Amino acid sequence: MSLGAAFVTMFQAAAKTLSTTAAVSRGILLSIRHYCKKTPTTLRVSEAVAGAELGANVKVQGWVRSVRPQRANLFLHVNDGSSLQSLQIVASSELNDPLLTFGSAVEVTGILKKSPSQKQPVELEADHIHVVGECNTVDFPFKIKNRHGLEYIRQFPHLRCRTNAFSSLLRIRSEATTAIHSYFKENDFVQIHTPVITSNDCEGAGELFQIEPSRPENEEDENFFSVPAFLTVSGQLHLEVMSGAFSRVYTFGPTFRAENSQSRRHLAEFYMVEAEVSFTQSLEDLTKVMEDMFRSATEHVLAYCAEDVDLFHKHVTPGHKDTVDSMLRKRFPVITYSEAIDILNRSSEKFVFPTHWGCDLQTEHEKYLVKHCGNIPVFVTDYPYDLKPFYARDNEDHPQHTAAAVDLLVPGVGELCGGSLREERLDLLRARLKELGLEDTYSWYLDLRRFGSVPHGGFGLGFERYLQCILGVDNIKDVIPFPRFSHSCLL
Amino acid sequence: MSLGAAFVTMFQAAAKTLSTTAAVSRGILLSIRHYCKKTPTTLRVSEAVAGAELGANVKVQGWVRSVRPQRANLFLHVNDGSSLQSLQIVASSELNDPLLTFGSAVEVTGILKKSPSQKQPVELEADHIHVVGECNTVDFPFKIKNRHGLEYIRQFPHLRCRTNAFSSLLRIRSEATTAIHSYFKENDFVQIHTPVITSNDCEGAGELFQIEPSRPENEEDENFFSVPAFLTVSGQLHLEVMSGAFSRVYTFGPTFRAENSQSRRHLAEFYMVEAEVSFTQSLEDLTKVMEDMFRSATEHVLAYCAEDVDLFHKHVTPGHKDTVDSMLRKRFPVITYSEAIDILNRSSEKFVFPTHWGCDLQTEHEKYLVKHCGNIPVFVTDYPYDLKPFYARDNEDHPQHTAAAVDLLVPGVGELCGGSLREERLDLLRARLKELGLEDTYSWYLDLRRFGSVPHGGFGLGFERYLQCILGVDNIKDVIPFPRFSHSCLL
Repeated sequence: MSLGAAFVTMFQAAAKTLSTTAAVSRGILLSIRHYCKKTPTTLRVSEAVAGAELGANVKVQGWVRSVRPQRANLFLHVNDGSSLQSLQIVASSELNDPLLTFGSAVEVTGILKKSPSQKQPVELEADHIHVVGECNTVDFPFKIKNRHGLEYIRQFPHLRCRTNAFSSLLRIRSEATTAIHSYFKENDFVQIHTPVITSNDCEGAGELFQIEPSRPENEEDENFFSVPAFLTVSGQLHLEVMSGAFSRVYTFGPTFRAENSQSRRHLAEFYMVEAEVSFTQSLEDLTKVMEDMFRSATEHVLAYCAEDVDLFHKHVTPGHKDTVDSMLRKRFPVITYSEAIDILNRSSEKFVFPTHWGCDLQTEHEKYLVKHCGNIPVFVTDYPYDLKPFYARDNEDHPQHTAAAVDLLVPGVGELCGGSLREERLDLLRARLKELGLEDTYSWYLDLRRFGSVPHGGFGLGFERYLQCILGVDNIKDVIPFPRFSHSCLL
Repeated sequence: MSLGAAFVTMFQAAAKTLSTTAAVSRGILLSIRHYCKKTPTTLRVSEAVAGAELGANVKVQGWVRSVRPQRANLFLHVNDGSSLQSLQIVASSELNDPLLTFGSAVEVTGILKKSPSQKQPVELEADHIHVVGECNTVDFPFKIKNRHGLEYIRQFPHLRCRTNAFSSLLRIRSEATTAIHSYFKENDFVQIHTPVITSNDCEGAGELFQIEPSRPENEEDENFFSVPAFLTVSGQLHLEVMSGAFSRVYTFGPTFRAENSQSRRHLAEFYMVEAEVSFTQSLEDLTKVMEDMFRSATEHVLAYCAEDVDLFHKHVTPGHKDTVDSMLRKRFPVITYSEAIDILNRSSEKFVFPTHWGCDLQTEHEKYLVKHCGNIPVFVTDYPYDLKPFYARDNEDHPQHTAAAVDLLVPGVGELCGGSLREERLDLLRARLKELGLEDTYSWYLDLRRFGSVPHGGFGLGFERYLQCILGVDNIKDVIPFPRFSHSCLL
C-alpha cells in the first residue's frame, strides 16, 4: 500500500469510530484533531513503554504477541524487539480485524496514555490499527498460549528469533559483544581483523575445514591460493604478528573446527575473543586481563540487559542468578596444574578418566575443580610442557616439566579460556620447531623472534561458552543465531 | 631474565652512571633516590608524550625507531604502537649498547621531563636502557633511513605492521570499526553474528568457496554438513530473518568471493557492514542510514585518528584531505538510474563499455557519475528490474521496469554500498522464485513473508572500500591486515 493510500485508510478508520460514544469517550476525537495538526511521531516500543511522548499522537510498529477482544474494547500486546516488553494497545472493538492474530505485523497509531492498570505504566489508545502482514496461526509453529522450550524452537532457525527467549538471547549476545569491545577499547587494545582463510594450522593436528572454489576453472588450477587453505582455528599467530607493533591487540570473530560431534558442547563455527599482550612478566599479566574482561562484560550485561537476563534466570535456568552473583563477588582463585592433580587424586569422586600428573584435564575434572573451589571461576596454571603446543613458553623446571599456560574454568561449562605466555626466545623456539619438523613452515614465526622479540602472551575465550556460563544455558546451539554442527547447516 | 635479575641489572647500570658528572647533572642521582622509594610507573608512549607523570620515574617499553649517538648523549626514539608518535629518550652515551639498533625492543626507565627542544613536548631522561630483543638490521627488511612504499612493505605480511604507514592504517581500521559499531548502537540496531558457513548462495551465481573437512573420516561421509556448504557472500538473508523480530539489525564481518582476480579492487576475503531495517516506506529510509553512517564514522575517525589520517593525507595520497572535507560538507545527491544513463549518454567521455538503458554500470561509469556530481558520494536509485536479484522489490513501473535498489558511489572507488527494498509481498516473491526454479530452496525465505511480513530493506557496505575512500589508498590489499586473493594466502 502506498503512503497516500495508508493515510486515506487511517482517516476512514478514524471517521468510522466517530459514531460510537465509547470511542469518543476514549479521546479519539482529540487524536483526530491532533492528526490534522501533524503526523504522529514513530516510537519504538521500548521508548513508548519508558513513557516517551506521553499524551502525544504516536505510531508504533511491531508484531502482535497477544489479542484479547472484549465486548467494547480490544486489547493487544505489540512487540518490536527493542526490548522484552510489549506495549499494551487499547482500541474500540470496532477496530478488530480477523487478520489481527498472534504473529501478525501491525502499525498502530493513537495517543500514549498512563495506564489505569498496575500491570503496565503506559498504554496506547489506538485510533487506527493497520495489519501490515498477516500470520496464519495454524501454520505458524509458535502458539499464543504455549511456552515453547529451547529445543522445540531450535527446529525453526528462521523464526525462533520471534520468541521471547531467543530474542532476549540475541539482545544479550549483542550487548555482550558491545561490552567486550568496550573493555578492550578502554584498555587501549587495537582491534585486528585476523583472517578466516589461512594457510596455517595453528594448533598442530586440529580438525580443519579446507576450502576450494566450488567450480574450479580448470583441472590444473584446483588450488585457488596456490597452497592448501583452511578455515582458521585461532587468530593467535596473526595476533602475535601484531603484538610486535602495538603491545596490546585483540580479535573477536568466528573460528572453526571440523569436529564430528553433535554434543551440547560443540559447534563447527563459533566465536572467539582472543587477546595478545606484549612485555609480559608472568602469567598474572594474562589472568588479570581475563578476569577483568569477564567481570566488566558480565556487569555490563547485567546492567544493560536486566530484563532479558532475568527471563533466563527465572524461567530457563532457575537459581542461576545466585551462581552469577557469587562469581562476581569473589576474586578468581589460582591453582597450579600440579595442585589440581593433587585435588583430583585426593577426591572421592569416581571419574570416567583416572588422573595422574601428565594427564589432560577432562570436562569432568574441570567441573569438579570448579565445585571444589566454591563454584566460582578458577585459573589453573603451569600445565605439563608436553601437553601444550609448540608456542607455549618453557618454564624450564624439572622433574615435572611445565609450560607457562593457563586455563580459566567456570561453573557449568568447564574450560572458558585458554592461554599461555609464548616462547619468545629464538633458540628455544627454533629447537622445538626443529624437533617437530616445522622449522621451515614457521620461519616467518621465527622472524618475529629475530627482530625485536619481546616476552608476550595471550589467550582465547569461547564466546558461546561465556554466554552459557552467565545465562546457565545447557546447549551451545541455543546461544548462537545460526548453529552449524555435523550434519546440520540450516539456511 | 627474571624480575629480580632485571632489578639487579638496573641498579648496576645506575651505579655505573654515578661516576660521570654529565650523568649526574642530568638528574640521575635524583632518579636513583626515586627508585629506592618506589618502582617506576609503566606508561604507554602515547601517555608519556601527552605529558602524563611529568617529573616522575617511569618505565616505557617499545621498539626503537631511531638511534643518534652523540659525544656525551645518546638519543633514541621509541614507539609502542599506542600512537604514531615516538617518545624521545635522552641518555648518557655510556648507556649505549651495540644491540641498541633500529627495530630492537627496549625497556627504558628514567624521569619524564619537559623537552628543551621545540620538536617534542617531553622527553625521557633515561637512567637505564634494557635491550629486550635485538634486531639484526642487515636482515630486517625495513631500513632506518628509507621511506618504504606500500608495495614494498606488502611483501612482508608478518612485519609490515612495524612501519609507520601500516601501523597508522591498522589503528584507523580499528577506530573505524569502533565508530561503525557505535553508530548502530546509538541508533538502536541489534548486532547479529550472521554465519560464515552457509548452505545458501545469496546472490545467485556468485563465485563461491566450498568447504569440506580436510580429512574426511570415510569415503561415504564426504559431506560433513549433509549438504554442500559454502563461505558466505553476504549476511543479508540471515539478517532478513532477524529483521522480522528486531526491526533494526546489522552485521559486520568477513565475506568471501572466489574471484580469480589480482586487481587492486578485489579480495577473496573482505569485510562487509550490512544492515536491515523493517517498516520502510521508501528507499529514503535506507539512504538516510547509509549517509548518516558514512558521516558519523568518518567524522569519528577524523577526530580520533587525526595524526594517523594526516600521515596518509600528507605522505601517501597528497591532496586527498580536500576530497574528504568536501564529501562531509555537502549532502549526497540522489539520481535515478535512468538519469544516470542520460548523463552518461550525453557525456563526451569515451567509455570502454558503451551505455544504454538496461546496461550494468561499470566502474568507469560510476567514477564518471561521481565526478559529474562534484566529486562527492552520490546515490543511484531504481535500477532495471532484470539486473537485480530475486529479492529486490518490484517497482511495478513500465515500460522501463525497475526495482527499488540503490547504490552509493564514492570518489576514487566507485560502488561503496549496494542495497534495496526487499520484496515483502508473498505472491510477487513466490512468482519470481518459481520462475527461477528456486521456490523449494527458498521456502524458508517465503515463510518470512507468510508470517507477519513487513516492508523492509537493507544494504551492504564494503569496509575496505570505505577505508580506501577516506584515506585515498589505491590498492585494497593495503587496507586489510592479511590480504587473501587468488594465488596468495600468506601466513
